[in-house]
Amino acid sequence: MTSKQTTANTTSPIGIAAKGYAVDSASTPFKLFNFERRMPAADDVVIRIHYCGICHTDIHQVYNEWHMSKYPMVPGHEITGVVEQVGSSVKHFRAGDHAGVGCMVDSCRKCHICKKDTEQNCADSCLTYNSTELDKVTPTYGGYSNLIIVKEHFVCKIPKNLPLDAAAPLLCAGITTYSPLRRYKVDKHTQLGIVGLGGLGHIGVKLGAAMGAHVTVISTSESKRDDAMKLGAKAFLVSKDDEQMKTAANSLDLIIDTVSAPHDVAPLLNLLKFEGVYCAVGAPTKPLEIGAFTLLMKRPTITGSLIGGMKETQEMLDFCGKHNITCDIEKIEATPETIKTAYDRTVKADVKYRFVLDILNAFK
Amino acid sequence: MTSKQTTANTTSPIGIAAKGYAVDSASTPFKLFNFERRMPAADDVVIRIHYCGICHTDIHQVYNEWHMSKYPMVPGHEITGVVEQVGSSVKHFRAGDHAGVGCMVDSCRKCHICKKDTEQNCADSCLTYNSTELDKVTPTYGGYSNLIIVKEHFVCKIPKNLPLDAAAPLLCAGITTYSPLRRYKVDKHTQLGIVGLGGLGHIGVKLGAAMGAHVTVISTSESKRDDAMKLGAKAFLVSKDDEQMKTAANSLDLIIDTVSAPHDVAPLLNLLKFEGVYCAVGAPTKPLEIGAFTLLMKRPTITGSLIGGMKETQEMLDFCGKHNITCDIEKIEATPETIKTAYDRTVKADVKYRFVLDILNAFK
Repeated sequence: MTSKQTTANTTSPIGIAAKGYAVDSASTPFKLFNFERRMPAADDVVIRIHYCGICHTDIHQVYNEWHMSKYPMVPGHEITGVVEQVGSSVKHFRAGDHAGVGCMVDSCRKCHICKKDTEQNCADSCLTYNSTELDKVTPTYGGYSNLIIVKEHFVCKIPKNLPLDAAAPLLCAGITTYSPLRRYKVDKHTQLGIVGLGGLGHIGVKLGAAMGAHVTVISTSESKRDDAMKLGAKAFLVSKDDEQMKTAANSLDLIIDTVSAPHDVAPLLNLLKFEGVYCAVGAPTKPLEIGAFTLLMKRPTITGSLIGGMKETQEMLDFCGKHNITCDIEKIEATPETIKTAYDRTVKADVKYRFVLDILNAFK
Repeated sequence: MTSKQTTANTTSPIGIAAKGYAVDSASTPFKLFNFERRMPAADDVVIRIHYCGICHTDIHQVYNEWHMSKYPMVPGHEITGVVEQVGSSVKHFRAGDHAGVGCMVDSCRKCHICKKDTEQNCADSCLTYNSTELDKVTPTYGGYSNLIIVKEHFVCKIPKNLPLDAAAPLLCAGITTYSPLRRYKVDKHTQLGIVGLGGLGHIGVKLGAAMGAHVTVISTSESKRDDAMKLGAKAFLVSKDDEQMKTAANSLDLIIDTVSAPHDVAPLLNLLKFEGVYCAVGAPTKPLEIGAFTLLMKRPTITGSLIGGMKETQEMLDFCGKHNITCDIEKIEATPETIKTAYDRTVKADVKYRFVLDILNAFK
């Protein structure tokens, strides 16, 4: 295709050749995978992928830890790149734009949840990988690949002042923490707690600080104190230090808990002020245990949040553009071997704070 | 004292003779107990107790099931009676008024929690029994007694059209369910679920229906269906019937869970709409187990509620007066033996829906 604009052709069996890295099962290594992307429809944006972040979700899915994996799987939902062409009805993008794709590529767009701009919670939302298109048949393949074709509604603009590599994790880690910060109206009056200083936590600290909040990082490890402060935190609590935790009781308005490993939330809830909010953005496999007396005496709001809607994701990127916020990353070459090493290190929390794959160079 | 008004005399060691039923330990029976109430201060209301409801909390405390019991204990915090005299600065009560006292008799009234009219959550709130006055020394004795002296701020007016016996449980069971219904703005658009059809649940159904909500009762037992409907429910779910529970998934805006026995809340949360509210008003001793995926996918508000503030309690009583709502009760003679029998039956949930002790006749 030479034209920069295509016409609608959603039913064509002929696709566009694409290549990526896929796994065929939970126990086999990544390999080069040749596949077809759909022919772009009128509302589609074709994006040449430059970078893709490695989210912990990728690891859970590749290893089938959530028991819902479909293979072959091309992971990756922290995607940035450059628009290569757009369909005839696409309004807000043109070739050359910096674009991002996050965790979803479609939703029903008709239900009350979609109409509230929370497409991520739509029962029919189509995830970027390990999922299907709305037809419930066509598999979706993610961002460890050279090219992606996505409906305009699910594509975001990346502000030009943000580097595409360090911006990539904003599409998942960024929006995941931004959404509850906005939902609970964080501002300069907010005493904000961020639990865990990993991929999600580190960007949560930056975003919370940029919104003016007094940010306290709560971590199991004293060793993260200096980094927390450099990222913008004003206070640091070691969650295993009962004395510190007791002194800070009833001090926080909002806690964003980014930890995905099973952990005791009771000491965290104790940090909340009366009617404070605890919001989980991680997904521990063990249920959270919440004491009834805590609910009665503190009447907190205990809730969770899953990424964010498309409108909110764009708002987050614009906010990051304005405040010049990106993620702290380790950019790496993208090969089956480097991905494996990055997975191993991510599992050990040995990364500050996100690996980002150099996709463009891998598939040149 | 013959005057209907007294002057301030908070330091007098001389009290007013009172009598009630007390237990001396978790394993000894109720006995007649002679004690002194304080001399009324300028802001005190002296109430001749006519009726006192038996709340499940009384049973937990008498048997020291919450490991915080102090003896001798005169239980009872669902108190109605008639004002006998008032202190010189009392503005809103006079002799002859119908008055009610609930679960608390004082609080600091200075903290931000008190200033929000949520005195029940004040760290220094003084409970009606098994607690102390603000001095942290003087024990409080509850409503299984002939007389109580309470600061005006903690006394409510009972609308004259409500019978004092059936109104008594409004002071605890009524406000406990009313408060979250108001907090979450229940009206004719609300799909409301009430879990458990006991003392709390039955009045919750009446209040919710009077606010216009579509009320669904969720119970372990099909046998309660007819009663639920008679009380004002429009639908009924047997929580053990997976099929029924599945059909009703994502249908409720607000769930008030009145069950104090440990139970699985996951099937209840499944009934909530996206962003629905689950509010515990019972206090199971085992923590609630909340799955992280439920938090992320449904982003509910999980919270709890403890009775209500004084302003809200008066509002509830006025609402009940306007809608002619009282509790369904079994009124019984008040003797150590009848109390024991009532406790045994309450533990077996063999009461529709609240025992109320005839205190006036017991201490004539």
